[in-house]
Amino acid sequence: MTAAPFRVGLLGHGTVGSAFDSLLAERADAIAAATGRRPELAGVLTRSRGSFDEILGASDAIVELIGGIEPAREYALRTLQAGKPLVTANKQLLSQHGDELFAAARSGSAQLRYEAAVAGVVPVIRVMRESFAGAHIEKVHGIVNGTTNFILSEMARTGASYADVLKRAQDLGYAEADPTEDVNGKDAAAKMAILARLAFHAEVTLDHVPFEGIEQITSDDLDYAKEFGLVLKLLGVAERRDGGVSVRVFPAFLYGGHPLASVVGPFNAVTLESEAITEVTLSGPGAGGPQTASAVLGDVVSVMSSPGMELDPVEQPRFLPAEEVESAFYLYIEVEDRPGVLAQVAQVLGDHGVSVKSVVQKGIGENARLVMVMHPVAEGKFRSALDSISGLEFLRSQPRSIRVIEEEFVS
Amino acid sequence: MTAAPFRVGLLGHGTVGSAFDSLLAERADAIAAATGRRPELAGVLTRSRGSFDEILGASDAIVELIGGIEPAREYALRTLQAGKPLVTANKQLLSQHGDELFAAARSGSAQLRYEAAVAGVVPVIRVMRESFAGAHIEKVHGIVNGTTNFILSEMARTGASYADVLKRAQDLGYAEADPTEDVNGKDAAAKMAILARLAFHAEVTLDHVPFEGIEQITSDDLDYAKEFGLVLKLLGVAERRDGGVSVRVFPAFLYGGHPLASVVGPFNAVTLESEAITEVTLSGPGAGGPQTASAVLGDVVSVMSSPGMELDPVEQPRFLPAEEVESAFYLYIEVEDRPGVLAQVAQVLGDHGVSVKSVVQKGIGENARLVMVMHPVAEGKFRSALDSISGLEFLRSQPRSIRVIEEEFVS
Repeated sequence: MTAAPFRVGLLGHGTVGSAFDSLLAERADAIAAATGRRPELAGVLTRSRGSFDEILGASDAIVELIGGIEPAREYALRTLQAGKPLVTANKQLLSQHGDELFAAARSGSAQLRYEAAVAGVVPVIRVMRESFAGAHIEKVHGIVNGTTNFILSEMARTGASYADVLKRAQDLGYAEADPTEDVNGKDAAAKMAILARLAFHAEVTLDHVPFEGIEQITSDDLDYAKEFGLVLKLLGVAERRDGGVSVRVFPAFLYGGHPLASVVGPFNAVTLESEAITEVTLSGPGAGGPQTASAVLGDVVSVMSSPGMELDPVEQPRFLPAEEVESAFYLYIEVEDRPGVLAQVAQVLGDHGVSVKSVVQKGIGENARLVMVMHPVAEGKFRSALDSISGLEFLRSQPRSIRVIEEEFVS
Repeated sequence: MTAAPFRVGLLGHGTVGSAFDSLLAERADAIAAATGRRPELAGVLTRSRGSFDEILGASDAIVELIGGIEPAREYALRTLQAGKPLVTANKQLLSQHGDELFAAARSGSAQLRYEAAVAGVVPVIRVMRESFAGAHIEKVHGIVNGTTNFILSEMARTGASYADVLKRAQDLGYAEADPTEDVNGKDAAAKMAILARLAFHAEVTLDHVPFEGIEQITSDDLDYAKEFGLVLKLLGVAERRDGGVSVRVFPAFLYGGHPLASVVGPFNAVTLESEAITEVTLSGPGAGGPQTASAVLGDVVSVMSSPGMELDPVEQPRFLPAEEVESAFYLYIEVEDRPGVLAQVAQVLGDHGVSVKSVVQKGIGENARLVMVMHPVAEGKFRSALDSISGLEFLRSQPRSIRVIEEEFVS
């Protein structure tokens, strides 16, 4: 084994960067045995030391673990323009500046690998790029944020409030001190933009992905849902639909038998659907430092051992307006408990073309709770119905609605 | 794109072979765009036409879809010895003659790819070889036979008998006319041997894998299990344990919240566990002609686009004797319904070091049913206890026992 070492330039030395540094040293011999070249660090760039130009010049590949947009974007572009492979875990950069990055990779004939940017150690990028290469992917959906999945699982398990469980998640290290982008759905939306780009060979960025989070979820929502055998998850869905594509993030109820319903705790799970392959689901823990470093190292090994290829984004797809996309909905309202009220609610729904699948009514003192699940309907129609219901004089609470995933597992 | 075409020699033209033939033609342009070379058939060998030598000489890679041992084994060895890549879906060959095949691949410096041999379209081989390259895999377990998973799911769902559901599976094409190797666990054992070899870098063949099937399962077993919230699956388990390895196939009860419990119908699911990566689960439909052909084509594309590498099997592991491996067990017996009987059964179990976790007793006329779940115990101890129980004079049925997977999902 006298081949020249494979020199890796490392940008960033925070949690993931230092984990990668250690892992690379630990695995260098095994990788040398498998690939014929020994990987070693050519240099490390941190805020206080190192020169990007020198590191780039001395490296066969760059690993970008700085995070955020600048200077990560500049370094990434310059790496790819120089024709050198880039491995990154930076979902912000990929989801907001993907067009630019992939264009640079094509013009520089350079590999761009980013397994660690989505779904932690779950190798969904590799499986899409390689196992599903050439397959026409119809839909990618799943749980791509471990923090919110932990929070929702714990709320369901313990009955505790959102605020209490969020605090617990922070204590356990499953949520950051500022959890805003996790709980409002933005983190999941960035990941879905990255997955949708790859799945549909299309220019998808974060701007194309409407997202809703879980901040408004109450333990009451979870309790009532149990009456229907439903489980609440924050879902990302990217699908080809009616000649366009739709990429969204929203909280949704799943039937208990749905394969994503059993994904509990800080886990991720992604299902890929294609006519040729039917469907494949991958699941595992969301990102932690060592797991992310392991995914990054996997990309480095791939760069070392295969020439790599980038599929051109060829489609500029039509993004379906959210109000045209059909979903089933759950609706919770409190109403005055007197005859005819249920009939009137059903009438308003029917007038807007919304059809009720099941309903539970329960007296609570002078009022009654109505919990309903609708058949799938275009979101715009449901929102109009909701507006009308909000104006009914016998209403005693604001309506609460959450999407329901109808489809059950193939059997 | 004026590079020479990539010539594929196809051995076998049955269901999968002809599906591969069509798929290759359909995807050739897309593959040419991605890899720079257009794949095309160099020749097809069937029982009645074609010469292997001519096809080998004219091919850049061989796809073996004959199945069975001979002549598949001879052709596979000669391909690898000639230094040409081999793609195969042949689990019998890999599980019974793996040592020989991998040795030939190493000595010929030839790629050997076999994604389609295990778990249908679920890309478990690729994920183990690439994403988990260098990781120390501790355990691989899951559902690797879609036929039996369909049968068990249907028995649980409908309450129908094993024989009736098997007939239904045959009508639907989920079970073959001769389902012996599916229902007796041998098919799953072959796949677990292949997975264990790759996971542990060890020489594992079918002979090392004790297997039990589902032919003896009754709908009563499933009914009683429901009292404990259990779901029955045929599991394959390969694990490092006590300095050795254990690879087994057996029917087992899972708690309802276990991630494999929600895998229903003719599906496969495999969980990989490693300290660095914690765990990743992959699931999807078991093999069908088009899905298998798709997995084969994925391997062909990999052969075209990467130099490939084979890890040497370096360990000749110690295989743990089955009686030393600990499992939890469910036990069902019918006994005479009189005082002291439960105490005597518990006494016999305790004398053999078997500890009871939970018990349900129900009167049925003059007899009583005892359904018990044990804490994990070495299988040898449990079998001894079972022998003693079989000799008790108040016993009214033969004891029935099934393993129970205790661990619940991380949360």
